[in-house]
Amino acid sequence: MVDTAPRTTYIGASTPKVDGVDKVTGAARYGADMRLPGMLEGRILRSPHAHARIKRIDTSKAEAAPGVMAVVTGKDFPTLKPGSHVQVGVLRLDMYRISHNAIAREKVVYAGQPVAAVAATTPEAAQAALALIEVEYEVLPHVIDEVAAMRVDAPLLHDDLFTSGAAEKPTRPSNVALYIEMGRGDVAKGESEAEVVIERSFKTQMVHQGYLEPEAETAWWQLDGRLTVWADTQGPFGQRAQLSAFLGVPQARITVVPMEVGGGFGAKNALRLAPLCAGLSRKSGRPVRIVLSRDEVLRATGPGVATTTFVRVGARKDGTITLIDARMVYNAGAFPGSPLAGGTLVGFSAYQTPNLRIVGYDVVTNRPKVQAYRAPGGPPISFAVESVMDEVAERIGMDPVALRIKNASRTGDPGPNDLKFNRIGLADILERVADHPAWTGPVAAPKSGGKVGRGVALGYWRGGTNTSSCELNLHGDGSISLVTGSVDLSSARTAFSQIVADQFGITPADVTVSTGDTNSVGYTDNSGGSRVTYVTGTAVFNACQAAISILKSRAAQKLGVTADVVEFAAGVFSARDIQDKRVTLKELASDSVRGSGVISTSGTATGMQAAPAFAAHVADVEVDPDTGKIQILRFTAFQDVGKAINRAQVEGQIQGGVAQGVGWAVHEAYVWDDKGTLRNASLLDYRMPTALDLPAVDVELIETPASDGPFGVRGVGEVPIVPPPGALANAIYRAVGVRMDVLPMNPESVLSAIKRRARPPARNRWLKGVGAIEASDGGAVAGVDTPNDE
Amino acid sequence: MVDTAPRTTYIGASTPKVDGVDKVTGAARYGADMRLPGMLEGRILRSPHAHARIKRIDTSKAEAAPGVMAVVTGKDFPTLKPGSHVQVGVLRLDMYRISHNAIAREKVVYAGQPVAAVAATTPEAAQAALALIEVEYEVLPHVIDEVAAMRVDAPLLHDDLFTSGAAEKPTRPSNVALYIEMGRGDVAKGESEAEVVIERSFKTQMVHQGYLEPEAETAWWQLDGRLTVWADTQGPFGQRAQLSAFLGVPQARITVVPMEVGGGFGAKNALRLAPLCAGLSRKSGRPVRIVLSRDEVLRATGPGVATTTFVRVGARKDGTITLIDARMVYNAGAFPGSPLAGGTLVGFSAYQTPNLRIVGYDVVTNRPKVQAYRAPGGPPISFAVESVMDEVAERIGMDPVALRIKNASRTGDPGPNDLKFNRIGLADILERVADHPAWTGPVAAPKSGGKVGRGVALGYWRGGTNTSSCELNLHGDGSISLVTGSVDLSSARTAFSQIVADQFGITPADVTVSTGDTNSVGYTDNSGGSRVTYVTGTAVFNACQAAISILKSRAAQKLGVTADVVEFAAGVFSARDIQDKRVTLKELASDSVRGSGVISTSGTATGMQAAPAFAAHVADVEVDPDTGKIQILRFTAFQDVGKAINRAQVEGQIQGGVAQGVGWAVHEAYVWDDKGTLRNASLLDYRMPTALDLPAVDVELIETPASDGPFGVRGVGEVPIVPPPGALANAIYRAVGVRMDVLPMNPESVLSAIKRRARPPARNRWLKGVGAIEASDGGAVAGVDTPNDE
Repeated sequence: MVDTAPRTTYIGASTPKVDGVDKVTGAARYGADMRLPGMLEGRILRSPHAHARIKRIDTSKAEAAPGVMAVVTGKDFPTLKPGSHVQVGVLRLDMYRISHNAIAREKVVYAGQPVAAVAATTPEAAQAALALIEVEYEVLPHVIDEVAAMRVDAPLLHDDLFTSGAAEKPTRPSNVALYIEMGRGDVAKGESEAEVVIERSFKTQMVHQGYLEPEAETAWWQLDGRLTVWADTQGPFGQRAQLSAFLGVPQARITVVPMEVGGGFGAKNALRLAPLCAGLSRKSGRPVRIVLSRDEVLRATGPGVATTTFVRVGARKDGTITLIDARMVYNAGAFPGSPLAGGTLVGFSAYQTPNLRIVGYDVVTNRPKVQAYRAPGGPPISFAVESVMDEVAERIGMDPVALRIKNASRTGDPGPNDLKFNRIGLADILERVADHPAWTGPVAAPKSGGKVGRGVALGYWRGGTNTSSCELNLHGDGSISLVTGSVDLSSARTAFSQIVADQFGITPADVTVSTGDTNSVGYTDNSGGSRVTYVTGTAVFNACQAAISILKSRAAQKLGVTADVVEFAAGVFSARDIQDKRVTLKELASDSVRGSGVISTSGTATGMQAAPAFAAHVADVEVDPDTGKIQILRFTAFQDVGKAINRAQVEGQIQGGVAQGVGWAVHEAYVWDDKGTLRNASLLDYRMPTALDLPAVDVELIETPASDGPFGVRGVGEVPIVPPPGALANAIYRAVGVRMDVLPMNPESVLSAIKRRARPPARNRWLKGVGAIEASDGGAVAGVDTPNDE
Repeated sequence: MVDTAPRTTYIGASTPKVDGVDKVTGAARYGADMRLPGMLEGRILRSPHAHARIKRIDTSKAEAAPGVMAVVTGKDFPTLKPGSHVQVGVLRLDMYRISHNAIAREKVVYAGQPVAAVAATTPEAAQAALALIEVEYEVLPHVIDEVAAMRVDAPLLHDDLFTSGAAEKPTRPSNVALYIEMGRGDVAKGESEAEVVIERSFKTQMVHQGYLEPEAETAWWQLDGRLTVWADTQGPFGQRAQLSAFLGVPQARITVVPMEVGGGFGAKNALRLAPLCAGLSRKSGRPVRIVLSRDEVLRATGPGVATTTFVRVGARKDGTITLIDARMVYNAGAFPGSPLAGGTLVGFSAYQTPNLRIVGYDVVTNRPKVQAYRAPGGPPISFAVESVMDEVAERIGMDPVALRIKNASRTGDPGPNDLKFNRIGLADILERVADHPAWTGPVAAPKSGGKVGRGVALGYWRGGTNTSSCELNLHGDGSISLVTGSVDLSSARTAFSQIVADQFGITPADVTVSTGDTNSVGYTDNSGGSRVTYVTGTAVFNACQAAISILKSRAAQKLGVTADVVEFAAGVFSARDIQDKRVTLKELASDSVRGSGVISTSGTATGMQAAPAFAAHVADVEVDPDTGKIQILRFTAFQDVGKAINRAQVEGQIQGGVAQGVGWAVHEAYVWDDKGTLRNASLLDYRMPTALDLPAVDVELIETPASDGPFGVRGVGEVPIVPPPGALANAIYRAVGVRMDVLPMNPESVLSAIKRRARPPARNRWLKGVGAIEASDGGAVAGVDTPNDE
């Protein structure tokens, strides 16, 4: 609900979304809206094979086709050395792998990987030319499943990939890119103290971020070596750094202009189209635009991770958790780098236990390289942990919320990485849940005569930090414009307009907020990790304060006092204790463009503490025991947002996160055929939830201020996608008595579980053999037939 | 000549133009290159009459025509109160008149004035719809000539126009908008002391600025009231302020995005198309682009001023000037505001005399409203003064350069407005001329058997000041981007890249300079008045210094010393007197994006002293006495540029100014028919000089540092258009013995003068009657038959 009433302060109000009209009228300019004189259309030729060696590419017929102005293959790009990387914020990006993912060289490692690209005067000409490119492949055996890929005899994707993170340096390459191990205490001791131990394994599927806007980018490589990219990206500065390394062009010669982004959710941090556009532009001398089809989006961009996980929890009958032990196999797709680290934090931050062990594997398979997806790596492991916690509560006969309250992480407690939490609101959330009718009231009545049940689950996100910048300009009429380096994915511009309005005592309508290109604003890390309102918002606050400080000294001069006695409120500067001396912001603004000096300030924020955010979701579901179809009857999301700058937008972002979490939990999955190609590469077959599948999501905001930053704000975006799979799985159990160990929990899998109910769920149904990996050769590849640790 | 050799400092070098490749390859984006989804094409219906009352406009047929999405007339725009104005820098702009100039209301006051505008899906549909708009006019008597317009019985353009500046408030409206009077001493006393007195009157024609790019602008007025204009302008901030007043939209809701400008020379300070695009966009809900035809550019944009002037100079035989007396009638076109003030400064700054009187009239006529043109108002009065000075020198038998040296203004002398000059280089220039072969050597030999002669003339421009801003961002790899508020008309970006490179010890290739929109950079006044390199360059210097100061304190921390002993040279920070402690710019830059804090600084400059600039041009011409055709054989431009940041670009700008000065002097003129419509509205008939008409222009730079600013720079752009008419007129006299008193000095006028040679030139050939204006009713309108002051 948008609130347009006049008021004197705007932080906390539900002011209208500043980009709302642009977006609903079609005025907002996305990547596909680019038009440039002489612009060409690019199309990409993609591998039909999941794994193959490229023996020959002949582009001569395509080059001679009508309208074709350029054709590129991997040979047209610099050959980077293995290990080449760039640092973008906290991320060390492997440019060698990124460049191979963008366009294949000797091998293709997934179906859909780019092999060549064509630029032509029309899209039809470009499309027709793709068919004229001759590629000779030698098809190789492929592997799709992450556990299968760990076998010593699995097809090997990269003969230069050696497991990192293992205690001993591996002697031979494998598909296990990374091994991690973390924790504290002694799980064996924890097990000996436990009165109940539950251990289960789980499997989740690759899912797509489901953004509405297919990737669309344009590049123009000038003859003097300057490259401009109109990018569909969450991080223009990161894109610039990567392009610089990829193409061998100094950063100073590259300008990345961010367009509006029609949904990213983590996927659009990755560099994908821009290098191909750039290569085609360099060859043709013309601007080149590439707009993906939905088929390409689903087949060949970076979806969210598939996983196989194992969780063991021990507890005493009073509810004290004595051990948490987990193994996580994360499927990175064709190149290393699944969100394993994110998974460890999301999965194991909510609960305190003295004995914790987390082992994780980053495994490559012949699928598209996964990318971040909202709370990257979090939902699958949270699904596992929250399901096991529910089972523990059931077994000891304790209320699931009470179990969580008893073991909840509190301010000062250590996280899974042993860093201590600063101020956190998990206990505040759980107290609210414990008293709330959504938890204490009767379960919603069934709508279609099925069985009903209620489930609860927690969610977590550490909160991104990194670096942000902005520029603030005061205009001659007292209005203000602000340019930030952050792409706006989630009403950030609206929140910033509220922050600026309150600082200066003006209205949000007097503030214009835009996102700058990489030349016009200071370095800013990607829009992701729920960091924008928190960190960029702090940069905005700092820029405001810098401007107000200059204005106070100008006011002091006018008032004939010293700056330290000048007070500023509601757009008026006055001298403390002096009645009638005052000067307005408008007067000082007018002076500023007529000789007293322009007010133009830069704001930056860096090195902030993380602002960890927790949530608890409570779901009432109805299960049709004959079909396995579930219907969500009621859904309440409790979340500690620190401080809601714009309540309507915060609620909307939480509701959106729940919708995506429900999609992952109940509907969505990549389905592979036996050749390793995707069977459901359209939105007809890839089943995203529609409005009819989703309940009205009630939102309960808890505002426990973050330890750092000017307003107590915490990032909001990531957390709400995390709890739905666990909450819904637990509700399904309460409805029909089956514990789900797979996602999606669609009719097929739920009905199969109901039919299997007679037998108890196998503890290691999905993760046979992986338990022995620690003992295997160099910590690298598991033999499947070795005994697991049952 | 461009110099690409590697070097350690770049100020003073001829580095390549940074926008050069863009411009020669067609990559630079001008107004006409705009493409937006759903964009409409606008066309303008213009008055066919020089003066008429609009009795009725019926747009209904046009509105119903295929493809037409909107039609606007004057009624679609707010009615501003007479006297409404905005302040833009030092200019107080009359928005009431500007809005009537942009689109007519009750009356049309020149042929070509917009009456209505149409937006349609294709340019053809828009053009066709113009013919369907029915306009009923009552044609009124018109007046074109500025002296005729001063008659009491002249057709009156505006019945609300009363002369300002007169001693007594006028009781009735007239075509004289402004009367000015300035000077010192007593011209009668000066006359009594003179041994020679020369008085002559002169007439010059309206000329066009001759920019290559016809005006092209696009506006998009969103449903939420935000307006974006992609402008073809010299001043985005001025355009924003004017649009705000014109359309009644707060400045905060308007973004002006400056496009590349294909020549402005003063003309593109004016607001013209953007309000019409905006009005059409508001009605249609779509972006609307208007691109003018060349016919419209010549007929209906704002050309340079036409004048009738009178100059009287008295001198003693030793060359001492005892009096200068002048009358200037400046033809403003249809609305008040000719560059009369600029004319007084340009005409009378070079010479010192104790007795000075300048009287000026700003007169409206039924022509398009004049706009600024390079050294606005300067060339016509300089032509007059320099011609009379040459005649004085001849009459007393003195070398023309010696006469000028004797009377030249020097540092500390008063200007015509009695403000004292700060450091100026006129004497330095004249000393260089006096010894230079261009002046001392033999006159060039004729090429076609004609008569040859040499002339000299001086030029002046006060130098613009006002306010400028920029933002500087240091990137992680040590490269820098700079965003300024100044539109680049004259290689400003190139000069700024040199300034930044030298400050940081990097190369210009490591610096990216762009022009920001009105949101992304602090307030900056128009690019005009030769102020950009001087004032914006100072802002750039200030931004560099602010960044270096932060870097020094970071370096101090790293080196373990205090900031005051940190030295910075060639990209390395070191501690004074400590040998091996050093840290590079690259290291600090890399730290800055990884947590030490982004380096992003704002630079502004305001309230600088003017940096006055003088020039002397020497021309050798050949005159064909049978045809009157002249050919320039040799041309040398001496100019005090203070400090040339980029020598090649400074020379180019001077050569370009000379080319335009030659055009005004020899070729160009608006020609009117008896209905007050322009007869030569095409580049075939409007005779701009071609490469064949122009000599190679030798440039001699004098570098007398300006009193203010970090480098001693003076603005370069305006001065070189000023001297050519005087220098060429004086050369023609030396060749064939006729004193020209009209521009252009084309074959027709030169031959006519040669034929008239038997009679002495009439002292008041052009200005009959105007001398009596002072005595007439209220100082307002002259009666033509009253005796003049002969």
